[in-house]
Amino acid sequence: MRPIGEFELIALFTREAPAAGAGVVAGIGDDAAVLRPPPGELLVSTVDAVVDRVHFGRAFAPEDVGWKALAVNLSDVAAMGARPLWALVALATPRREDPSRLARIGRGLASCARAHRVAVVGGNVTRASELSLTVTVLGSARPGRILRRSGARAEDALLVSGTLGDAALGLLPGAAPALARRQRRPTPRLALGRALAGIAHACIDVSDGLLQDLGHLCRASGVGASLRLSELPLSPAYLRVARGLADPFEPALSGGEDYELLAAVPVRRVPEALRAGRRARTPLTVVGSVVPGRRIQVARCEGGLHPVRRLGHDHLAVPRRRSLTWTKEDVGSILP
Amino acid sequence: MRPIGEFELIALFTREAPAAGAGVVAGIGDDAAVLRPPPGELLVSTVDAVVDRVHFGRAFAPEDVGWKALAVNLSDVAAMGARPLWALVALATPRREDPSRLARIGRGLASCARAHRVAVVGGNVTRASELSLTVTVLGSARPGRILRRSGARAEDALLVSGTLGDAALGLLPGAAPALARRQRRPTPRLALGRALAGIAHACIDVSDGLLQDLGHLCRASGVGASLRLSELPLSPAYLRVARGLADPFEPALSGGEDYELLAAVPVRRVPEALRAGRRARTPLTVVGSVVPGRRIQVARCEGGLHPVRRLGHDHLAVPRRRSLTWTKEDVGSILP
Repeated sequence: MRPIGEFELIALFTREAPAAGAGVVAGIGDDAAVLRPPPGELLVSTVDAVVDRVHFGRAFAPEDVGWKALAVNLSDVAAMGARPLWALVALATPRREDPSRLARIGRGLASCARAHRVAVVGGNVTRASELSLTVTVLGSARPGRILRRSGARAEDALLVSGTLGDAALGLLPGAAPALARRQRRPTPRLALGRALAGIAHACIDVSDGLLQDLGHLCRASGVGASLRLSELPLSPAYLRVARGLADPFEPALSGGEDYELLAAVPVRRVPEALRAGRRARTPLTVVGSVVPGRRIQVARCEGGLHPVRRLGHDHLAVPRRRSLTWTKEDVGSILP
Repeated sequence: MRPIGEFELIALFTREAPAAGAGVVAGIGDDAAVLRPPPGELLVSTVDAVVDRVHFGRAFAPEDVGWKALAVNLSDVAAMGARPLWALVALATPRREDPSRLARIGRGLASCARAHRVAVVGGNVTRASELSLTVTVLGSARPGRILRRSGARAEDALLVSGTLGDAALGLLPGAAPALARRQRRPTPRLALGRALAGIAHACIDVSDGLLQDLGHLCRASGVGASLRLSELPLSPAYLRVARGLADPFEPALSGGEDYELLAAVPVRRVPEALRAGRRARTPLTVVGSVVPGRRIQVARCEGGLHPVRRLGHDHLAVPRRRSLTWTKEDVGSILP
């Protein structure tokens, strides 16, 4: 296979990505992109990386890799209540990577960019021993409409979008297409995030597992939380698999990569939030509430608390899966 | 060695980096940074990566790695005539990397950030099989003060800052400290870039080699260029080494990583540009001129043109060093 040159690759990789867009004065092709921020708005910026064999294996289609590399960043923008505007894409690739695989990754990224009206305004290509994509996304929101992690107050209801745990189960060999798709093509909850911006006190995206991300939100807000196990939104596909698991709730509580939104909403505004979810075509479920203190508790429906041992995903931790112990009652109350 | 956790590492890595700064509403610790862009200004944004064993070997001190990862981005900001404001840092690291090495890399990045008043507002940590740092920098400039690659016109003088080729020679085993430092601790020409913003027609930073970056500038501007070999600014340390090379000018013409600025300046404003260089404590040298057409020529001082075979660095190319042939006359006219 002929090795591909840097400049050739940039062209190949960005061919299908939207280069123009709101506020793009100059995109790829200069020392830096030149951008006109929406007057009076605040910028949000976030960066995330996907690495071959860490975040995706050969089971991922190359288009999925490109889609996901951008989508995970858009999820962060969604969690801030902002709209995404621009992306910069840093590609690291082995010298002899198949150019057609790289082009397909670029195509997947471009399709995600088009779907969410993001202009790809800059990038970088470098040689490395393994393939990775590091994407930076810039977005904006009006001041006062930014959702932070830190605004949750005791008594707030905790709402989560969509369903939980599908992405984790989508990693299992032979996963149902609905689950595999949640793992490979996450949908950033952008419309929902913006709709919640005037309603919620705090928000975070569920990327590392519900418990872990709830922990971040609680720590930032100086509060605790109580989740109700029986209220976790689980998909039919999840339930079919979870039946056979020793710990049927663990993927939903600690699995990671769901890219749903978790929001703290004042109780009186919950109906408004639920309506916003319906308008954004992303259902919201009340899964618990914010409590004083610092503890995060998972309440079993028959009463009593469930011990929480593994919060979620640490990107550097040596894998050491600790099982949560679940009672038969818990399983019976959720699994149909 | 105890493996380090993600959240611990983020704290370690960013401990010494300036977290606050102009326009930082919220930095590290939320789903995205929240930033207030300077009213009425345009943003510039750029991303670049350094990868272990590709961009730095064990000869680099960890602090150098961190410094360089940020500095190469600041050089792009300088070439746009902008001032840097904020950085996002994506670290990819093997699980069992020495935490003290990572902390030292973070310290080097922080010292570069402090030196250039850049706030580190976001980041990401991921596991990978090799260490890399991907840094995004955001800066700003007033409209009309942005330096592009595309504004050069025939008759413009070509000016280059500092000296050329030192960084390439700094890679050689046993390189003199002055050369090694140019390779490991490049100085982004920020004050100069901003000073040139009202004067130059076009600008680019010399990261991939003078000829290659001149090629980018010429292509973007639809012009050609003529360089005068005898005018290339070469440091005493360069000259000492170059004497012994078969191709004494190749590092200066095609070596890469100098991170100097190359600017096209209207002839009548050259004195003003030279004064701006002195004020910015970064000498500028007139090395040639912009010409009609598309060819880039290197003129020998005794007359005649020098054939150009290797333009510069392609980050993906299989190494294949082609030697330029230099005449004795060329060497004699420059080397003291």
